[in-house]
Amino acid sequence: MTDARQEPAAAKAATITTPSDREIHVERVFDAPRDRVFAVYTDPDLIPQWWGPRGMTVTVDKMDVRAGGDWRFVARNPDGSEEAFRGSYREVTPPERIVQTFEWEPMAGYVSLETATFENLGERTKVTTVSLFYTTEERDGMLGSGMESGLNETYERLDELLAELESG
Amino acid sequence: MTDARQEPAAAKAATITTPSDREIHVERVFDAPRDRVFAVYTDPDLIPQWWGPRGMTVTVDKMDVRAGGDWRFVARNPDGSEEAFRGSYREVTPPERIVQTFEWEPMAGYVSLETATFENLGERTKVTTVSLFYTTEERDGMLGSGMESGLNETYERLDELLAELESG
Repeated sequence: MTDARQEPAAAKAATITTPSDREIHVERVFDAPRDRVFAVYTDPDLIPQWWGPRGMTVTVDKMDVRAGGDWRFVARNPDGSEEAFRGSYREVTPPERIVQTFEWEPMAGYVSLETATFENLGERTKVTTVSLFYTTEERDGMLGSGMESGLNETYERLDELLAELESG
Repeated sequence: MTDARQEPAAAKAATITTPSDREIHVERVFDAPRDRVFAVYTDPDLIPQWWGPRGMTVTVDKMDVRAGGDWRFVARNPDGSEEAFRGSYREVTPPERIVQTFEWEPMAGYVSLETATFENLGERTKVTTVSLFYTTEERDGMLGSGMESGLNETYERLDELLAELESG
């Protein structure tokens, strides 16, 4: 595990693929056991420490982690502007699966369905997130939005938080 | 137009079809010009008079009819229980098209995308509503929910309201 944490950041980039015309698959391995990774994903107190790219300050407005519950995160950008992200949980099955909708309020009505699967690799965890869109056009819009760099920054922040929690 | 209003209710049933594996198409003709039908669809003050089956009392919590705006209707059932419906507008193009998401809060996270098209037939208007789901299973769940009788009741109430507005 220690070796893995010493890999350069590039070696840990998320793998993003488009196996069908309405989906985006993202795979990323984290150096922490599955229970801990799942706990971090579902803890409202920890969201501000890792969710979103660096420079964005996130506060949790709602995070009712159960089937049918709503979530809403407010992000403040470095220029002081705010934008919010929201959705609802369809399924929460610790420590294996979270299915939720995802909507960026400035583009309200463009909703995707995200299924995050947490795979136990012993001391490591593979998180696979599949985003499903109504249409290929919406999927391609997300791919063209710069999601990849934002995602990799988010995952690096999550690496750092997981390392802190382990050493703490 | 007077003749049409005298047709028995059965003759005006909505036509419900499933032309693809993720969609429900609904067609219904109303005895009123397109501008009026579109105006009624987008008027928060009129929603309680026609939206939903008879016996349900609907109040409009939000209805911000513009791209990116949210809507939320609270329905009180005859037994006093309440449930809400909500979504966001993607497109509002008077008097032709409304694209919006649709979610029933007790099943939050199950979101469909509805495109309503208003076709000018002179003194009548054909409204075609296409509901698009993420998966066939979700589409079939909606078909099995008794939507058809609820929809026909809603459309009959809309007939009545349109007739009232014309005579008033």
